[in-house]
Amino acid sequence: MSEPRTMTIEALEARVEAILRRAGLNPVQAGAVMRVIVAGERDACKSHGIYRLEGVLRTVKAGKVDPGAVPVVLPGDGSAITRVDARRGFAGPAFEAGLPVLVERTRALGLAALVINDCTHFSALWPDVEALAGHGLASLALCPSYSAVAPAGGIAALLGTNPLAFGWPRTQAPPYVFDFATSVAARGEIELRRRAGETLPEGWAIDGDGQPTTDPQTALAGAMLPFGGHKGSAISTMIELLAGVMIGDLTSPEVLAELGSTSLSPMHGELVVAFSPERFAGARRGDPLARAEILFDAILGQGARLPSQRRFAAREVSQTSGIALSAAETALLDRLLAEGLDAVG
Amino acid sequence: MSEPRTMTIEALEARVEAILRRAGLNPVQAGAVMRVIVAGERDACKSHGIYRLEGVLRTVKAGKVDPGAVPVVLPGDGSAITRVDARRGFAGPAFEAGLPVLVERTRALGLAALVINDCTHFSALWPDVEALAGHGLASLALCPSYSAVAPAGGIAALLGTNPLAFGWPRTQAPPYVFDFATSVAARGEIELRRRAGETLPEGWAIDGDGQPTTDPQTALAGAMLPFGGHKGSAISTMIELLAGVMIGDLTSPEVLAELGSTSLSPMHGELVVAFSPERFAGARRGDPLARAEILFDAILGQGARLPSQRRFAAREVSQTSGIALSAAETALLDRLLAEGLDAVG
Repeated sequence: MSEPRTMTIEALEARVEAILRRAGLNPVQAGAVMRVIVAGERDACKSHGIYRLEGVLRTVKAGKVDPGAVPVVLPGDGSAITRVDARRGFAGPAFEAGLPVLVERTRALGLAALVINDCTHFSALWPDVEALAGHGLASLALCPSYSAVAPAGGIAALLGTNPLAFGWPRTQAPPYVFDFATSVAARGEIELRRRAGETLPEGWAIDGDGQPTTDPQTALAGAMLPFGGHKGSAISTMIELLAGVMIGDLTSPEVLAELGSTSLSPMHGELVVAFSPERFAGARRGDPLARAEILFDAILGQGARLPSQRRFAAREVSQTSGIALSAAETALLDRLLAEGLDAVG
Repeated sequence: MSEPRTMTIEALEARVEAILRRAGLNPVQAGAVMRVIVAGERDACKSHGIYRLEGVLRTVKAGKVDPGAVPVVLPGDGSAITRVDARRGFAGPAFEAGLPVLVERTRALGLAALVINDCTHFSALWPDVEALAGHGLASLALCPSYSAVAPAGGIAALLGTNPLAFGWPRTQAPPYVFDFATSVAARGEIELRRRAGETLPEGWAIDGDGQPTTDPQTALAGAMLPFGGHKGSAISTMIELLAGVMIGDLTSPEVLAELGSTSLSPMHGELVVAFSPERFAGARRGDPLARAEILFDAILGQGARLPSQRRFAAREVSQTSGIALSAAETALLDRLLAEGLDAVG
């Protein structure tokens, strides 16, 4: 019988890595996937924590990801683009492989891009922009997902929930980071309301005929709506263009066609654009990182919050007091470790 | 007595350029400013058309812009950043000066940035991303404005209306272009409702105490809200960081402090990031421009519109039938040409 347990970050890392190794992931895949899952759990970002393990295993079992993939950083062509072939493995290992080159190119050129192709994506984008902030760089990260969102004025799912993340380095505080879906709500939030028997707020979704609905079940069979009306819809379309079409990888409708399901992790590409504030600011107006603090102070000074503030507060608690897991979560970890791929349908 | 008149694009160009020259703008300033103003009028984008001339002249008269400035493209430093010093002139001439270098660098490196510093901004950003699309390049353009928008959860104006524009080249149609304020509505829309004695929709603005208001007058004295809640607020903050702090130029609160007014055009910087779809796609999955058309067809096929569609339709009419000006607009042009800077307070 499993019980609630508090684990140190290191202990949870070891446990999650063991589960992934047992499921057939090679060390490079298991290590990088473990790091993003434990980061989610550590930051109380439960939707990207150990809850994701089952989806990872399901995607492995369905043969939609190569658990033995070793990502390859393609030889540079003198451009500002660094390209990593994920070799049909997960996105995390590919990002980790490309990161040092991206950092070097960004410092040399002022801005540079990382293109990840043929990767399976199941995690948030904030670990990527946070990693770049750790090197003193600002960055944008974006990727498609699979058709689940109708364009503004449309009647059917076409765009993905297409996340957009941004990071800005801070020297005396965790970085300024946002990472959000360009749908008005995450699919998981609709699912949670369905289970709870609740209705949806107006403006979240449409039914199969393109009419507004507040019924979660009808919404899941219909389409979500983009955040911010036509503006969010335009940004989501931009993400399809830049992080799908432009990088020679799949758009959200193509992902859905290839995968045939929204219960497996989507395979597509990712685009990261990194900026060196130091190179951009040059000799003008002083240290850009110091000047940014004036803006953050003004935001906080009027009682508004910075994005990710709650996540960083949770991280601090985890680092000092460990990560509290419920009995169900402990049971999940035990079961996945014991049964491996047999644990998932 | 002025009467409604239909002018060819060329005739309006000549008229607007003459007004700007009469107001003291040198040929390089007058030419570039004329082009963006006439482009707005041609596209039935009245808020960025000849209506802006008075603001331009007012800003010249107030000594907040140098009408004789000649922008300088700074020597390259081997990076992907091209920097143009607008020399306290308007943004348009600086963009035109930097464009050829930006195009060359983007083709060479896959992506590159144009930084414009110390420019006065009164126009939309879509002319910039459209110009890059004309060279087969995708691009993002962003700039701060002046404090007029409260951050989500905040109580007072801090962020600017901070526009974000994106362009994607199309070979058989006008480019995919969006350009919008990151406030839920443009300040001009609130002003129009005030004059019409109408109330505002919920969620547009707050009063001086940070409480929601639907009264336009109270809203103008309070603050606008960002589009899309905390997501739009985060994007607007990102624009302050990238296109203000990072490029060593003013943020929106700094602009307001320097200018002391929101009735003059703001002086700050602008950031443009350009991408070569060809370089990014490499040899993968075929021509990115052709693949993008599949996405556009799917959007249009479900009855949704592409952004700027209305603007491009208006352009076609202007190109074949000329630009129809009202009696008041004709009178405005006549008066500005006759009186020069004396026409404005």
